[in-house]
Amino acid sequence: MSLALEVTRHLGIGLGKATVGRFADGEVNVVIHENVRGKDVYIVQPTGPPVNDNVMELLLMVSTLRRASARRITVVIPYYGYARQDRKMQARVPISAADVARLMESMGVDRVIAVDLHCGQIQGFFGPRVPVDNLDGGIVGLDYFGCKDLHSPVVVSPDAGGVYRAKKFKEGLEQKYDMQDLGLAMIVKQRARAGSVDQMDLVGDVKDCDCIIVDDMIDTAGTLCKAADVLVANGARRVFAFASHGLLSGPGNDRIANSKLEEVVILNTIPTSPQREANDKLTQLSVAPLLAQAIFNIHAKKSISALFK
Amino acid sequence: MSLALEVTRHLGIGLGKATVGRFADGEVNVVIHENVRGKDVYIVQPTGPPVNDNVMELLLMVSTLRRASARRITVVIPYYGYARQDRKMQARVPISAADVARLMESMGVDRVIAVDLHCGQIQGFFGPRVPVDNLDGGIVGLDYFGCKDLHSPVVVSPDAGGVYRAKKFKEGLEQKYDMQDLGLAMIVKQRARAGSVDQMDLVGDVKDCDCIIVDDMIDTAGTLCKAADVLVANGARRVFAFASHGLLSGPGNDRIANSKLEEVVILNTIPTSPQREANDKLTQLSVAPLLAQAIFNIHAKKSISALFK
Ligand SMILES: Nc1ncnc2c1ncn2[C@@H]1O[C@H](COP(=O)(O)O)[C@@H](O)[C@H]1O
Ligand SMILES: Nc1ncnc2c1ncn2[C@@H]1O[C@H](COP(=O)(O)O)[C@@H](O)[C@H]1O
Repeated sequence: MSLALEVTRHLGIGLGKATVGRFADGEVNVVIHENVRGKDVYIVQPTGPPVNDNVMELLLMVSTLRRASARRITVVIPYYGYARQDRKMQARVPISAADVARLMESMGVDRVIAVDLHCGQIQGFFGPRVPVDNLDGGIVGLDYFGCKDLHSPVVVSPDAGGVYRAKKFKEGLEQKYDMQDLGLAMIVKQRARAGSVDQMDLVGDVKDCDCIIVDDMIDTAGTLCKAADVLVANGARRVFAFASHGLLSGPGNDRIANSKLEEVVILNTIPTSPQREANDKLTQLSVAPLLAQAIFNIHAKKSISALFK
Repeated sequence: MSLALEVTRHLGIGLGKATVGRFADGEVNVVIHENVRGKDVYIVQPTGPPVNDNVMELLLMVSTLRRASARRITVVIPYYGYARQDRKMQARVPISAADVARLMESMGVDRVIAVDLHCGQIQGFFGPRVPVDNLDGGIVGLDYFGCKDLHSPVVVSPDAGGVYRAKKFKEGLEQKYDMQDLGLAMIVKQRARAGSVDQMDLVGDVKDCDCIIVDDMIDTAGTLCKAADVLVANGARRVFAFASHGLLSGPGNDRIANSKLEEVVILNTIPTSPQREANDKLTQLSVAPLLAQAIFNIHAKKSISALFK
């Protein structure tokens, strides 16, 4: 079942009828099959791989609905492509995350619902007329780990930038599941260039503890598997991981399958693949309830008009 | 040799240094390797297949150059993707050709150079601050056929919409190559749906004549090959074809190889493929001189700063 369909089930509404296909030359062919005049429309479209196709589909759907006189268009982007290219780390590179925001605005997006944006600045890449809800997917992971039988659990951030996220996850577990004094640890890494990982040092104690590495996304899983090695080398009992977005590009799946990780928990913000389904170490949780709730809250007591995927 | 490189050779300038690659997850990774501050920059980028990747590369290159303080950015789009989705032929479809124009404007394009746009309206999809040169690729084809030994040539439009283009081609041959009273014919077709072709009737006389079918693009080549059949059935001696843009999607190449066509002449507005190279019936002419001339004319006596691909 597609994520969009799942969301409609939670909301108790139907899925809007649309065709998003391709012409012979690969150009996107959009046709909306029902009247949307004056309606409040939601489009559920993760912009993960194939990212450029997905972005273009989204842009053309927005423009089509706009030209078809929809009243308000909200794009639900469970995974926001190009999020990591969020600043100029060197001269003469794009700020793609901002560019994609601008492209969406130019097609007439009114509102954005996203899940665990790679950085909060992305909300600012949209103008003040376009509110961006950044939902916390950590809640879904937290509810999963809260029910597990863990032995002196420690939440681990795989890099310095993720400490805030890990701390929030830890506090959520403590408050919601009445766990006392969970540990917090951090790995400090020296990255040479994108995709490759250099030295890693552990800050904090994990000896005989069950570790949960918390991150926003897993791409090629190089960092994650290396982090698991470091934790095991430091005496960790078992190593789990939670990330909202499971890209699992290139060797990602195989690396996890062959790693020291006990279990890797991800959300379905990116559509699953046969490769992902076949990976026994992966557990996939649904963000549909979270998205449905956000949509419901926007409407309060008003009715929802149409939801497309 | 890439088209961009060929253009620089004609202009006697160097090609700007840039990397347009991919991250592991397929996201476009742009890095411009030289200073463009205050410069007049040209980007040569056909937006043919894979169209969404090529469009996104172009958009991100423009935003990168803009943020790197280029003075003026001209995009040279030998083939303009999404050109055929230029109006709402039915309710609730995008006007993608206009949307792509808007996307380019939102990234900061200053000027566009295109070749044989599918329709003139595309120039109007850009605002008046963004001039669009629509170069006539027919001139290149005309110079090729003008030197051929043809027997009572007739220029044929494959549909009613292309008569103006065919007439211009015919008049060009007459004026530039001193040919007298060339014939003009037209095929009237009933299209059922995109990609499929129904009945075809011939208007005009082609008996014992060498025919040149003139069109702006060849996609799956269904219409073209069927038109050749109609001409041969009406007594044509040989059937040639000229089109600026050779998409040759899906069965396009094979259809031409197995058709009654003598020779199909296209321009290099879309990068060639091994399949295209292996097709003996295809002749590919270069638009590089035409593009170089257009760029040169924009500058008159001023010097050109940088050209990227
Ligand atoms: N799709 C991508 N895959 C891998 N690395 C990326 C991607 N997009 C951007 N980056 C790089 O990731 C780094 C930013 O990552 P972070 O420090 O986690 O925000 C920058 O060096 C970017 O150039
Ligand atoms: N990439 C494409 N491939 C095939 N047909 C297309 C494409 N884009 C648009 N069309 C259709 O082509 C028709 C317009 O073609 P034309 O009459 O030659 O301008 C419309 O029905 C469009 O929906």
